[in-house]
Amino acid sequence: MAQLGLIGLGKMGFNMRERLRGAGHEVVGYDRNPDVTDSTSLEDLVSKLDGPRIVWIMVPAGEPTRQTVAELGNLLSEGDLVIDGGNSKYTDDRINADLLAAKKIGYLDCGVSGGVWGKDNGYGLMVGGAASDVEKAMPIFDALRPEGPREEGFSHAGAVGSGHYAKMIHNGIEYGMMQAFAEGFELLEAAKVVENVPAVIKGWQRGTVVRSWLLDLLVRALDEDPELDDLEGYVEDSGEGRWTLEEAINNAVPAPVISAALFARFASRQEDSAAMRAVAALRNQFGGHSVKKVGG
Amino acid sequence: MAQLGLIGLGKMGFNMRERLRGAGHEVVGYDRNPDVTDSTSLEDLVSKLDGPRIVWIMVPAGEPTRQTVAELGNLLSEGDLVIDGGNSKYTDDRINADLLAAKKIGYLDCGVSGGVWGKDNGYGLMVGGAASDVEKAMPIFDALRPEGPREEGFSHAGAVGSGHYAKMIHNGIEYGMMQAFAEGFELLEAAKVVENVPAVIKGWQRGTVVRSWLLDLLVRALDEDPELDDLEGYVEDSGEGRWTLEEAINNAVPAPVISAALFARFASRQEDSAAMRAVAALRNQFGGHSVKKVGG
Amino acid sequence: MAQLGLIGLGKMGFNMRERLRGAGHEVVGYDRNPDVTDSTSLEDLVSKLDGPRIVWIMVPAGEPTRQTVAELGNLLSEGDLVIDGGNSKYTDDRINADLLAAKKIGYLDCGVSGGVWGKDNGYGLMVGGAASDVEKAMPIFDALRPEGPREEGFSHAGAVGSGHYAKMIHNGIEYGMMQAFAEGFELLEAAKVVENVPAVIKGWQRGTVVRSWLLDLLVRALDEDPELDDLEGYVEDSGEGRWTLEEAINNAVPAPVISAALFARFASRQEDSAAMRAVAALRNQFGGHSVKKVGG
Amino acid sequence: MAQLGLIGLGKMGFNMRERLRGAGHEVVGYDRNPDVTDSTSLEDLVSKLDGPRIVWIMVPAGEPTRQTVAELGNLLSEGDLVIDGGNSKYTDDRINADLLAAKKIGYLDCGVSGGVWGKDNGYGLMVGGAASDVEKAMPIFDALRPEGPREEGFSHAGAVGSGHYAKMIHNGIEYGMMQAFAEGFELLEAAKVVENVPAVIKGWQRGTVVRSWLLDLLVRALDEDPELDDLEGYVEDSGEGRWTLEEAINNAVPAPVISAALFARFASRQEDSAAMRAVAALRNQFGGHSVKKVGG
Repeated sequence: MAQLGLIGLGKMGFNMRERLRGAGHEVVGYDRNPDVTDSTSLEDLVSKLDGPRIVWIMVPAGEPTRQTVAELGNLLSEGDLVIDGGNSKYTDDRINADLLAAKKIGYLDCGVSGGVWGKDNGYGLMVGGAASDVEKAMPIFDALRPEGPREEGFSHAGAVGSGHYAKMIHNGIEYGMMQAFAEGFELLEAAKVVENVPAVIKGWQRGTVVRSWLLDLLVRALDEDPELDDLEGYVEDSGEGRWTLEEAINNAVPAPVISAALFARFASRQEDSAAMRAVAALRNQFGGHSVKKVGG
Repeated sequence: MAQLGLIGLGKMGFNMRERLRGAGHEVVGYDRNPDVTDSTSLEDLVSKLDGPRIVWIMVPAGEPTRQTVAELGNLLSEGDLVIDGGNSKYTDDRINADLLAAKKIGYLDCGVSGGVWGKDNGYGLMVGGAASDVEKAMPIFDALRPEGPREEGFSHAGAVGSGHYAKMIHNGIEYGMMQAFAEGFELLEAAKVVENVPAVIKGWQRGTVVRSWLLDLLVRALDEDPELDDLEGYVEDSGEGRWTLEEAINNAVPAPVISAALFARFASRQEDSAAMRAVAALRNQFGGHSVKKVGG
Repeated sequence: MAQLGLIGLGKMGFNMRERLRGAGHEVVGYDRNPDVTDSTSLEDLVSKLDGPRIVWIMVPAGEPTRQTVAELGNLLSEGDLVIDGGNSKYTDDRINADLLAAKKIGYLDCGVSGGVWGKDNGYGLMVGGAASDVEKAMPIFDALRPEGPREEGFSHAGAVGSGHYAKMIHNGIEYGMMQAFAEGFELLEAAKVVENVPAVIKGWQRGTVVRSWLLDLLVRALDEDPELDDLEGYVEDSGEGRWTLEEAINNAVPAPVISAALFARFASRQEDSAAMRAVAALRNQFGGHSVKKVGG
Repeated sequence: MAQLGLIGLGKMGFNMRERLRGAGHEVVGYDRNPDVTDSTSLEDLVSKLDGPRIVWIMVPAGEPTRQTVAELGNLLSEGDLVIDGGNSKYTDDRINADLLAAKKIGYLDCGVSGGVWGKDNGYGLMVGGAASDVEKAMPIFDALRPEGPREEGFSHAGAVGSGHYAKMIHNGIEYGMMQAFAEGFELLEAAKVVENVPAVIKGWQRGTVVRSWLLDLLVRALDEDPELDDLEGYVEDSGEGRWTLEEAINNAVPAPVISAALFARFASRQEDSAAMRAVAALRNQFGGHSVKKVGG
């Protein structure tokens, strides 16, 4: 059985520790939250691991991850291995890897998909880095990934950065799929030709072309709230959709569906749209079309 | 000087009567509103015109226009001419023309652009029908169109229906242009890099690639309300954008800009979006992402 | 065991006959192709069925289906039941149902999903019509639908027309999902950050948010042709995507993802784009930007 | 009369020198092309100007502009002023300004619109920087901008960077407007309801809502080539459309029209689309739909 240091025991990291321990691995966790941590500091965590160590980072992307990498660079030893399993932008990985390589510490980036269901179902994993490092961490990856053939829930995508790149594109696709279901749901709701919308969507789970895990989740949501009217149509975005669109720009690849899905989220968060005020103003100017005045 | 019967003296028809009279033509108007009408009924209007008569219909598209055409079919005589200057769908024109042709009454469809500014500036005209009928009505068209070369403010687009078709496409383009300005305006407002947004937009009126009448109108709107915050971002659509998109579907022509402009209007009128409630529900299901609960 | 008349033994109908017979039902098929038919004419087919009869139509949507319904109206008897399982537009169903109702013949519309895989996996079914008619045909539906809970592969969507409506929306969603995967695939191919694109996509099959039957099919396609370069990027559309967009227009529902997916198909079939020639012409006019001349 | 150093005498710079000289200003130009240059080097150019000097840079954005700024930093003196009139990204301006400010040299960024027509019509100008620097250069701006009220062809947008920001958004709007006209043109061409497409478009020049300079240019292009079939539908993009979309991402502003216009350009340059090969492959997998094989 393998041993792992795991930094960050939030929603994702906590569950991953559970899954790894369930598979018989030893996990020493660190989190600032004393209720969940197994160690008192990064130093303490590192001291509790036998060399060569593997340390998995599962903290928010950006500054927190970069800073954790930097601290580990000072604490770990030659031959150790750091894995960033968070949602980092793939361009951070080269920087992290170079920083650690200067100290002969290995680095892998690992995109992790599956959300809160991963604890029981396993996590889809996409890994970037050297094959020898991937090999070292394979017992951990095998415990985290879903059961079944390894290649159906795990991939070694390529060099450092490619794991997060693959996860970024995965999330861009996810945005588009969610919006496709969402538009279909709204059309069914609006047209009222179908009388039992939740039953129709539930009936798509087997045999159809759209059957998918997202569909299963939509069925689950509709079971709890058949018209989804306990929720507001307000949707955050976590960064990876934006980065996917940036990649479309950088590579001159048309991405109309992914951009439409992202823009729909932006629009969902606007109380009022400056753009549409401009259109209303223009219509009023040329046609004397009536407009809604604020407070009117 | 010519003589014209004009049915429908609303915002557009009333102004057109003014412009025609200003050009020295005789106009007998009919409207249900006794304050503006020159005749008491369609019969009365027809009786006040010398043959061969020209009668211009300027009433709402759809049933009102089709019914007026039918009534005129019973009142007019061989050799008379009916012009539909309203915003009819081009597929109505063939029906109207056939109905009148059975009684040897001519028919032209005329798309009219220019809004409330047409009275002084003249109206852009796009006409469909037989060349001989166009010729008969040319003094009227010449009075309504803007000054300058005839071919810059008037076109004979082709057979019956083509005038309204040209106007429909004109409006589709107009939707796209308005949305382009609107997105630019919102970006300027949101980014706050430009300190004086109205001054920048005003400064685009001469020399730039985007100079246009719509830009002039946007400048006018910003002069009155520099952040357009007296208005709500709520925008109606009048039908012609929808028909343009239907034509894109029917002809398998990609129309991403025109459809985006139309959808932005649809979205502007939604209090809450069922689609985005579905996306929020999905995110909540797989990731435990927080959602906004109604009343929460 | 039930008895069914089945008209149309093409790719779909032929397989459905196989599946139904495999489940022990008696199927009398009719097709113009003498190699596959069980009867020599519609009359012959009807004569071979015991009353009350159930006849399933599986011929191309539009005129062929409408004509088959009309002929069946003359051949069937009070109490018989016709099911249209083809891809008819939902507005045809009311017409078909009324025609048959005049002769006291029942009518159901059934959207069928699953393609060539349905023979073995079962078909996803969405049915519109009277509950009593649905009940009569349930043994047939149960044989055609996938194994597992009935409500996960079958739905009674509502009144006549709602089955095809549900199938239309299903296909609109399918367009959006396919385009989402397609954009992701192109981004991975273009950016070349991921070295092994097929391995990454194969690794999404378990544990990830995008896991789905369409993903499984993409993996299958990549197994056969890792860069998909035996194919041209030329994609037909079968009508249901267009109808979904028409419904978006008619119900004022924004459908940016579904429309983008449809437009991408339109564009894929164009040798050259008139729109983009216009953009090239404009750039050339204002900026002296170089353009590609035909044959240049 | 003012004196100006002008670096870069390409299509734009050459014309600007003409316009400035026509207005009576003294211009010392520098270009690597000996046929057009007035000086042999940047040193020579600087030596030919009286202090306090104004030097206008009109070279390609990015490295060429940044390098020119750096060289000028070594050649100019306290109190001199550099204006970047090229198409630089607005984020470069702060860097340029800081570099020069260290030597007490002023800096303005100036977005310039109008293309090859600017020589005669004047250029639309958007300027960012300190009001005192704007004041110094005003005689130059007044000569370059179109006749008419200054505020209709010139704006002081705000601090350093805001001029290029305004120009970037201007170009984003321009992309959307061009695509709107392009879609309308393609629809008219495809539907063939309008018989005389160039006449209809020419007839939109007066009185209509879409009247604009871009429309005038489209008319001009159609006068030369009525179906635009001497051109290929292949369209470059110059960077500012991409940056506008990046700004939409960064500010969470929906920009469906501007992104659609940009993606249409990307697609216009693809021989074949990997995305559409993926859609074709998926349809083939699930439905046995026929596909176009390469060379087939």
